[in-house]
Amino acid sequence: MAAELFDAVDVIRTKRDRGELTDEQIDWVIDAYTRGVVADEQMSALAMAIFLNGMEHREIFRWMKAMIASGERLNFESIVGEGKKIATSDKHSTGGVGDKITLPLAPLVAAYGVAVPQLSGRGLGHTGGTLDKLESIPGWEAKLSNERVVEILGSTGAVICAAGDGLAPADKKLYALRDVTSTVEAIPLIASSIMSKKIAEGTGSLVLDVKVGSGAFMKDEDHARKLAKIMVELGRDAGVKTTALLTDMNTPLGLTVGNACEVEEAVEVLAGGGPSDVVELTVALAREMLLSSGVDVDPAEALKDGRAMDVWRTMIADQGGDPDARLPQPKETLTVKAPSSGVLTELDAYKVGVASWRLGAGRARKEDPVQAAAGIKLHAKPGDTVAEGQPLMTLTTDTPERFERAEELLQEAFTIGGEQKNNPLIIDRIVSSR
Amino acid sequence: MAAELFDAVDVIRTKRDRGELTDEQIDWVIDAYTRGVVADEQMSALAMAIFLNGMEHREIFRWMKAMIASGERLNFESIVGEGKKIATSDKHSTGGVGDKITLPLAPLVAAYGVAVPQLSGRGLGHTGGTLDKLESIPGWEAKLSNERVVEILGSTGAVICAAGDGLAPADKKLYALRDVTSTVEAIPLIASSIMSKKIAEGTGSLVLDVKVGSGAFMKDEDHARKLAKIMVELGRDAGVKTTALLTDMNTPLGLTVGNACEVEEAVEVLAGGGPSDVVELTVALAREMLLSSGVDVDPAEALKDGRAMDVWRTMIADQGGDPDARLPQPKETLTVKAPSSGVLTELDAYKVGVASWRLGAGRARKEDPVQAAAGIKLHAKPGDTVAEGQPLMTLTTDTPERFERAEELLQEAFTIGGEQKNNPLIIDRIVSSR
Repeated sequence: MAAELFDAVDVIRTKRDRGELTDEQIDWVIDAYTRGVVADEQMSALAMAIFLNGMEHREIFRWMKAMIASGERLNFESIVGEGKKIATSDKHSTGGVGDKITLPLAPLVAAYGVAVPQLSGRGLGHTGGTLDKLESIPGWEAKLSNERVVEILGSTGAVICAAGDGLAPADKKLYALRDVTSTVEAIPLIASSIMSKKIAEGTGSLVLDVKVGSGAFMKDEDHARKLAKIMVELGRDAGVKTTALLTDMNTPLGLTVGNACEVEEAVEVLAGGGPSDVVELTVALAREMLLSSGVDVDPAEALKDGRAMDVWRTMIADQGGDPDARLPQPKETLTVKAPSSGVLTELDAYKVGVASWRLGAGRARKEDPVQAAAGIKLHAKPGDTVAEGQPLMTLTTDTPERFERAEELLQEAFTIGGEQKNNPLIIDRIVSSR
Repeated sequence: MAAELFDAVDVIRTKRDRGELTDEQIDWVIDAYTRGVVADEQMSALAMAIFLNGMEHREIFRWMKAMIASGERLNFESIVGEGKKIATSDKHSTGGVGDKITLPLAPLVAAYGVAVPQLSGRGLGHTGGTLDKLESIPGWEAKLSNERVVEILGSTGAVICAAGDGLAPADKKLYALRDVTSTVEAIPLIASSIMSKKIAEGTGSLVLDVKVGSGAFMKDEDHARKLAKIMVELGRDAGVKTTALLTDMNTPLGLTVGNACEVEEAVEVLAGGGPSDVVELTVALAREMLLSSGVDVDPAEALKDGRAMDVWRTMIADQGGDPDARLPQPKETLTVKAPSSGVLTELDAYKVGVASWRLGAGRARKEDPVQAAAGIKLHAKPGDTVAEGQPLMTLTTDTPERFERAEELLQEAFTIGGEQKNNPLIIDRIVSSR
């Protein structure tokens, strides 16, 4: 056994005592953790020390680079160039309720000749997962080989698929550890985790949708802004042009929360319709991705003229899905009605997200299955006037015993006649300050 | 499997966010950790959060109680009473260099009718262990059954033996974890660890020798004082009369550092001689233990008249040792001479301790063996005038290849002709403020 460069106890002590970790210490601790030489109990103590004592930007950048170096790095250079794709661009959302934006966004951007390698994850807790949504399409497969990803990107131009195990395995191991040790919410660890995966994925540019509000991971605007800024700089330092939109997640996005119902809504948007907030955010994010790729257009056009829909249909078919198939329908439905008349002033994203999870659309553990047809359809959004007895939402599930606990929560999720808050959907745009 | 009362993730989050743990959370987390339901990586994250965010006195007390409740508790009531022993009293030292005080102290206190159940540990790193020292006596056995401990205490009145695995097993498990996760030096964890073992041991009163200085665990007087105060209150709250002496550990205690050589020095003290600092501290600690037991005497008397020596001889024989046996002698010796003439003004305890460890008297890992005859004999102490070429120390070992690295360190361990510091040996006496 070769001698180790450092001792984990010393590395932990450095951060515990508010010191800065050297580049060499960071490279070693991530590599040794991946090799199993640094034990889980040592890494969790270090993660807690980082949580409480923070990291300098240099440390976060190096930590991210070390996690990237722990695995493979994809490369899409072969598909970009004269007569090929203009560039590659990707989007990452920090997660929200009703967030189906990836579905219309990837084909929309691809419609302008920019390839979108969207390596996605599954839902956990109250936030949904893009792969879970797409899996409600009969025949559609999330898993692709790296070669097939490159092939589809070169032809269709958009791929939404599961990130392979080879990308940033150190991050995968560390994330599972943070989840059980209350060290998830540390900004340096969140930023390096997200960016390590996105940079290993090999995208040319990146737009981040950093959500803030009750239904988001970050409840507080200052924290979300800080996270966005750090990630934008990490991307820049790694040579990936990165911008971020800070967006509101106090209210669910669109009128659907679940799996199949969100795919239906995404298709409406691709057909030139759909809820205005979903369209607004899709177009804004597409504009960022296209601008970063040197394409200055109004992306709303390709939603209206059917080009984005064409890419969508090919993209779904490329992964074995039938874009014309009827999506799974729920066995049972339950309607929640307005208890009084007035203006709907609040619809809490977090409570709606948890209720959808309780109906079967989400999972508590990674290995749990989800119900394709479970979820919530909203019939009114904040700002709308409702009449007593009018349907506010329709709950759907295959397992009606789940209605009670979901409805219980939804009864507390809305306010009629309270003070109207006018949160803008897009709060701010964050670019590198350097 | 029964449902668990709490989730480790929530308990960790509470302390991470600077909250106070409830009594129920503490009871659960210690019990669940002992049962293996709380994983090592969760406990180490919690330990780091405690290290950085601290604990209130109530939390420390409950943590200690929960660790005591994780195992058995000894009971010596049967040996105390009319016509039997007056009381039971014990001492704990936070560890130092040349600290052989337990050896003369236990028989000295027992000579006055107070029983001393001294459950001890082994050395680790630069500080020696009482059991390692005694094991240099041919035939002497550290391991006794609980029944035999009670029996010897009732007859001879003093036992120095290995603490059984049944006492505070949660502490044992947690200590091993803290050792590899840089969470050893947290005062709440140190205090609860020491006191859980001593209280589970069932002593009636306790005196703490809290050492401060280069050769001690605590280098800083404020920290040592804080630790002493917390432990004194923990003892009081648990119904064990506890006092503490804050003592200097910048210079080794006595003139010997090692194993057999420290036993020899202890026997000198029991014979009425020995170095003045060892005698002073032995008598001061004996006085605390006797006063706590209601015995108001000058303990120096029993060193002079041979009563303490009588108890020592019986005590050693009770555990199979031959008090008259010749102790192991080293195979090799090396003398370090004074490079100049003048007053010896400094002799660094830490460096002397590490040098003795390097000679073979100490161990790096729990399972390593120690050399009985390895160590250092000091021929001068700070304040003494030395002449150029005069022997300053004699190094002993069975493995002469160890001399070089030990001597290297010892050459830097002393100062001749510098500024004379006059540290009092006993810095302060700490009693409960309530």
